[in-house]
Amino acid sequence: MKVLGIDPGTHNVGYGVLEKNNGAIRSLEYGVVRSIAKMDLSFRLGEIYRKLDTIIGQIKPDIISIEKVFFGVNVKSAISLGEGRGIVLLLADLHDIEIHEFSPTQIKKAVKGNGRAQKYQIQKMMQSLLKLKDMPRSEDAADALASAYCFLNSSKFQQLIKQT
Amino acid sequence: MKVLGIDPGTHNVGYGVLEKNNGAIRSLEYGVVRSIAKMDLSFRLGEIYRKLDTIIGQIKPDIISIEKVFFGVNVKSAISLGEGRGIVLLLADLHDIEIHEFSPTQIKKAVKGNGRAQKYQIQKMMQSLLKLKDMPRSEDAADALASAYCFLNSSKFQQLIKQT
Repeated sequence: MKVLGIDPGTHNVGYGVLEKNNGAIRSLEYGVVRSIAKMDLSFRLGEIYRKLDTIIGQIKPDIISIEKVFFGVNVKSAISLGEGRGIVLLLADLHDIEIHEFSPTQIKKAVKGNGRAQKYQIQKMMQSLLKLKDMPRSEDAADALASAYCFLNSSKFQQLIKQT
Repeated sequence: MKVLGIDPGTHNVGYGVLEKNNGAIRSLEYGVVRSIAKMDLSFRLGEIYRKLDTIIGQIKPDIISIEKVFFGVNVKSAISLGEGRGIVLLLADLHDIEIHEFSPTQIKKAVKGNGRAQKYQIQKMMQSLLKLKDMPRSEDAADALASAYCFLNSSKFQQLIKQT
């Protein structure tokens, strides 16, 4: 089962693909989709949509996993976050892929055992958990891998495996 | 010049099309795009995307006008608002249509001369300003018409007319 984790945004969008076979989780690919900062929001969202659409078409994930935030951000950031999320949620529907959402606390606990882990710790933990040669340089990519990792260690994954 | 006003959302999306000829503004069409409430967010955004995509393709507006909110909502509502906005901003890019944003105060002032106008007043004012036979029954459609009306009375419209 291939899980695509996405860390949504209106400038940079992290993504990471994990696969679980016989209990072992391995990373297939991760990176960041970037839009041109000086362009306006509508164009940036269009760019992100086109790039993510291509990536999803190539990877063909079974599941998309993203973070669900409800507090700790101001209204302006929350609207931006929503705009980025909207594109990801739309693409999940257009590609007919099941989408699962986890709170920041659930994700941090899954990868670190600490709900208050810092960004840098997530990068270190993902390198360690996935036995990556190098630490993911991008926080966004590390966060995306963490979302995917959280799904693969969740009861939702267990339920899905039982069903199939 | 045809202006499509949109009132974004993740359940109901209001839209309204206005045209300005020789200083006179008239309404060409308005209504509400609805998604199935019991379906999940990803599917609802997909539905809204497909329906708005068809409407934009039929109307072929020169401009899209939407409200830009920065306060007065909680984080959860702001994220939802952003999700709905993301779909509209994306469609503007995919259809290569210029998009303009106005604050709630700018819009209310343009249609009512009062920055604190209530929803019902917007519906009444749009009926009066556009000489509609009936009052728009949907608040979302009235808000969308108000966004479009705001653009047609803005300095942005004057600049665009001078350029063309």
